[in-house]
Amino acid sequence: MTTIERPPPRVRFDDAQIEMSHGAGGKASRRLVEGLIAPLFANAVLAKLSDAAALSLGGAAYATTADSFVVKPLRFPGGSIGELAVNGTVNDLAVSGARAEALMAAFILEAGLPTTTLRAEVEAMAEAASRAGVAIVGGDTKVVEHGACDGMYVTTFGVGKIDGRLTLDPRSVRTGDRVLLSGPIGDHGITILLARGELDLEADLSSDTRSVWPYVSALLDTCADSVRWMRDPTRGGVATSLNELARDSGLGIVLYEEAVPLRREVRGACEILGLDPLHIANEGQFLAIVAERDADRALAAVRAVAGGEGATLIGEVRAEPARQVLGISAYGGTRVIDMLVGDPLPRIC
Amino acid sequence: MTTIERPPPRVRFDDAQIEMSHGAGGKASRRLVEGLIAPLFANAVLAKLSDAAALSLGGAAYATTADSFVVKPLRFPGGSIGELAVNGTVNDLAVSGARAEALMAAFILEAGLPTTTLRAEVEAMAEAASRAGVAIVGGDTKVVEHGACDGMYVTTFGVGKIDGRLTLDPRSVRTGDRVLLSGPIGDHGITILLARGELDLEADLSSDTRSVWPYVSALLDTCADSVRWMRDPTRGGVATSLNELARDSGLGIVLYEEAVPLRREVRGACEILGLDPLHIANEGQFLAIVAERDADRALAAVRAVAGGEGATLIGEVRAEPARQVLGISAYGGTRVIDMLVGDPLPRIC
Repeated sequence: MTTIERPPPRVRFDDAQIEMSHGAGGKASRRLVEGLIAPLFANAVLAKLSDAAALSLGGAAYATTADSFVVKPLRFPGGSIGELAVNGTVNDLAVSGARAEALMAAFILEAGLPTTTLRAEVEAMAEAASRAGVAIVGGDTKVVEHGACDGMYVTTFGVGKIDGRLTLDPRSVRTGDRVLLSGPIGDHGITILLARGELDLEADLSSDTRSVWPYVSALLDTCADSVRWMRDPTRGGVATSLNELARDSGLGIVLYEEAVPLRREVRGACEILGLDPLHIANEGQFLAIVAERDADRALAAVRAVAGGEGATLIGEVRAEPARQVLGISAYGGTRVIDMLVGDPLPRIC
Repeated sequence: MTTIERPPPRVRFDDAQIEMSHGAGGKASRRLVEGLIAPLFANAVLAKLSDAAALSLGGAAYATTADSFVVKPLRFPGGSIGELAVNGTVNDLAVSGARAEALMAAFILEAGLPTTTLRAEVEAMAEAASRAGVAIVGGDTKVVEHGACDGMYVTTFGVGKIDGRLTLDPRSVRTGDRVLLSGPIGDHGITILLARGELDLEADLSSDTRSVWPYVSALLDTCADSVRWMRDPTRGGVATSLNELARDSGLGIVLYEEAVPLRREVRGACEILGLDPLHIANEGQFLAIVAERDADRALAAVRAVAGGEGATLIGEVRAEPARQVLGISAYGGTRVIDMLVGDPLPRIC
């Protein structure tokens, strides 16, 4: 590791206290990380601010990632905190071009937590890890008093070797590149929102939590040298991930709004609640920027994997509007799509 | 990673709910991990149940470790949660024979946490990392509602290359080997207890939080091939670490009770509170089992490093009492020293 001089913070963090929005994955989260944490931890690796850090270990390039999971409720249709804790980490590595090789899990448990609840989550983690072909090699357990955490929190670390055929860098993105999305958006966030039972709203919907590695792997086997950038659009959704890309690449991202795959139930819930599906968290999807020449082959490769049938090319990279995401409707209308602001959906993962 | 068949659990975990003692690092913690978590996560690496896991990355042997920190209060004489989060992880790697190369940090923050509090801890982490010569390369930030965590929790992950001169294995321990302790015990645990202000007790005492790598490094440079086993006696204290060694080696550990270095203030507080200093957590000490032939050289090497002057040979390995730790007083009296039971000092790290 090479430590570099602390760079001047590009972003100021003047907020007097931490708010829910600082954990939502959108603008406020970015300000907290860029304006406070990153400048203090300044070094060459963290300066990239990606979800996973690349390290040279034993002469090979490895991706590592860390994520805390505080989702509420602990169990929801299609998944649970334990499953998210594994899949979320596997997916952070996948979009870094790495198959997860080993995970570690650290538990913070509330005194009084029923053992059946803990056992169910440890089992969910073991099963998700088994499905993803990754070992959980160690961890830690702490207990806090009843009331000092909300049931249980899980922090997962993952490590995996980066596919040597791949060079991911937002600065390698070029105009004409296509935006590939692996499937319908918003299932996870809306499922969690409904599972809390606070809204008078029901829908036949499940979280999309899954490992995206099989799809990423198919993509890399098909055209690794045409893949410029990948991201799993979790907190803050597709809009936030693509805004980060627009900013980091200096280019404009144009979305064909009607092309974005979206279940009827998610669209309906978002309309009623005044939410933009592009801001809703996903836990089993990924975005890839692929060179135009290979975009159709890339799409076919992802669609050929079971569960990848919903993959779609949802947009393209243009020179303008620089550093912005622009939605274009079928009728030619346009709108600027911003990052998530505030936290309409707290504790989604 | 090779996944092995799930071994039959040697320990049953029948408790209906999680209690503070399950997080205290003693017997109850061990039952939770061995009886519930490890059998479900079963694989070749976790089966060793050490604080750090050894992984082969890029053909080299690396140690990895994960720890959550939930210490209360966040700041205390001599340190703070951020400093512990770095030193604790650096030390877990050190006693695996690895200098920490990279850390990741995941924060769970409570809404309403003053930014000054967070900034102070991020600064403490950056400073501790700088002192230990390790980079913090990434992380995560989640925010939960006010009341859903106690200020902030930090989970740290670390990785470092294992010194190739070293083979650490409790099964390599032999009768006649000596027990080396790096300095006085109990400072951290008693400092935290007093810092809570719940007891009508005061003492001029500071946490011993520090990186133990300089001492471990000196030891390895002197006699790496005579070092059989190392451990940082945190939760559960020296007694718990040595009981784990006794169990894993099948041998008996004899402690010369009067030789164990102990500050007057710690001894006094323990007497008043009815605690055994051997059960109190340390955050800047380590234990090493060293072959008899090199024990004196090993001691001299650790003592020669600034801050290592308090190192002492506190005991030896005998065939009997097998799988137990036995204290011997200067007058020839003996007592069996057990692992920590219950949780007299919750949230110590």
